[in-house]
Amino acid sequence: MDSSFNPSVSVDCVIFGFDGSALKILLVERDTEKEVDAAPDHKLPGSLIRQDEDLRSAAYRVLEEMTGIRNIFLKQLHVFSDPERVVGNELQWLKEYYKVETPRVITVAYYSLLKLNKNIELHTRRKQAIWTDVQHVRHLALDHKKILMEALSTLSRELIYSPVAFELLPRKFTIRQLQSLYEGILGIEIDNRNFRKKIFASGYLTPTSEYEMNVAHKPARYYIFNKTAYEKEIRRKIRQGFIRWHE
Amino acid sequence: MDSSFNPSVSVDCVIFGFDGSALKILLVERDTEKEVDAAPDHKLPGSLIRQDEDLRSAAYRVLEEMTGIRNIFLKQLHVFSDPERVVGNELQWLKEYYKVETPRVITVAYYSLLKLNKNIELHTRRKQAIWTDVQHVRHLALDHKKILMEALSTLSRELIYSPVAFELLPRKFTIRQLQSLYEGILGIEIDNRNFRKKIFASGYLTPTSEYEMNVAHKPARYYIFNKTAYEKEIRRKIRQGFIRWHE
Repeated sequence: MDSSFNPSVSVDCVIFGFDGSALKILLVERDTEKEVDAAPDHKLPGSLIRQDEDLRSAAYRVLEEMTGIRNIFLKQLHVFSDPERVVGNELQWLKEYYKVETPRVITVAYYSLLKLNKNIELHTRRKQAIWTDVQHVRHLALDHKKILMEALSTLSRELIYSPVAFELLPRKFTIRQLQSLYEGILGIEIDNRNFRKKIFASGYLTPTSEYEMNVAHKPARYYIFNKTAYEKEIRRKIRQGFIRWHE
Repeated sequence: MDSSFNPSVSVDCVIFGFDGSALKILLVERDTEKEVDAAPDHKLPGSLIRQDEDLRSAAYRVLEEMTGIRNIFLKQLHVFSDPERVVGNELQWLKEYYKVETPRVITVAYYSLLKLNKNIELHTRRKQAIWTDVQHVRHLALDHKKILMEALSTLSRELIYSPVAFELLPRKFTIRQLQSLYEGILGIEIDNRNFRKKIFASGYLTPTSEYEMNVAHKPARYYIFNKTAYEKEIRRKIRQGFIRWHE
């Protein structure tokens, strides 16, 4: 019998938040002695899984602990399993922090999307976690920068192929906010006129009678995403066997 | 110190093969005493991971062992981590087979796409693995039926949003083969005329001067997928910030 090659399994959560203008990510400072690593030691929120929980429950546990909320978009991203991803001092720190004996740590990354608001910001501040502009993230502990890049790349793809953007926006939003979100995630500038034309052609945006207040520019109208109509149409198209990779 | 909640980690491979008319999946018979389970005990090919390998290497190891080939489409599907997924006799069998002590097994599923040919079929027969029509799979050991359903659902989505179908087809294929593949995976009948129209409109199919031989019906022309042109166009579109979920 040899259990020595049973790895520890953790979850790490890439929690994206959108404040109406920039895409942010939630980072925590590692609870570690300064000698371990001189660099500022920020990481993604995460945890080893418990014996009686599945991975999704573990990810929700981390998410709720850090943000105070639970019923939000959460999706498995990828498993990171390089045998060398946690070694030396890093592995030592983990063994002591979790009080486990382990040769190796495999992590399952999840990503989550939320609309930032005052309550969430209050909660995260109490947890000493920080919302950082994704464009400004330089170094992260372990392989967490790699995990973040993978999450961004997946989110970009989702943004193109599914209406996931609306998970990050308040229920009522302006076209400018929607465009900022696309630009923030895709990391590009999008032609304003083209974007508006495409998004209105979708037929899934319902105009409200409300406009922005107290803005210097011409107040923009608020819209609502018609999710029900979208999902109905997708089901219809799939029944017809539609193919869209070549469009 | 308590290592007891370190789970074992395995990979399980959903290996899809297309023979020109039906979508098949590779199954193995479990090496088990008949008392353990009276039902025919087929499962997905898989393995516990080794201490020095990452998950992808483990999946490639299984794939190569079972099919004799290596350089084919392989993608991480999902992690299955229900604490109750392997218990009782099933867990006992696993402990004895792998000679490990373990409270629980988490598996990372991969899926792979290949074009069936004589060499592969010879190899799999030697391994006593069987190619089964996906439509005919009833019961599988453990939660492998659930893994298969998840793989089919992911493959359906990929089929719609990416040109993944060509991984399952020989380099030269007929439109009929392409359509059979779509119908086999999506589990629907597709209108022939509509399909041809859509697929030709893509501009990514290059006609060859070759036709089917020895067929009862009018010989169909062979086509080649122009992958380079497709990838170039996608990169161009992404730079333009295109959105296609609403199209």
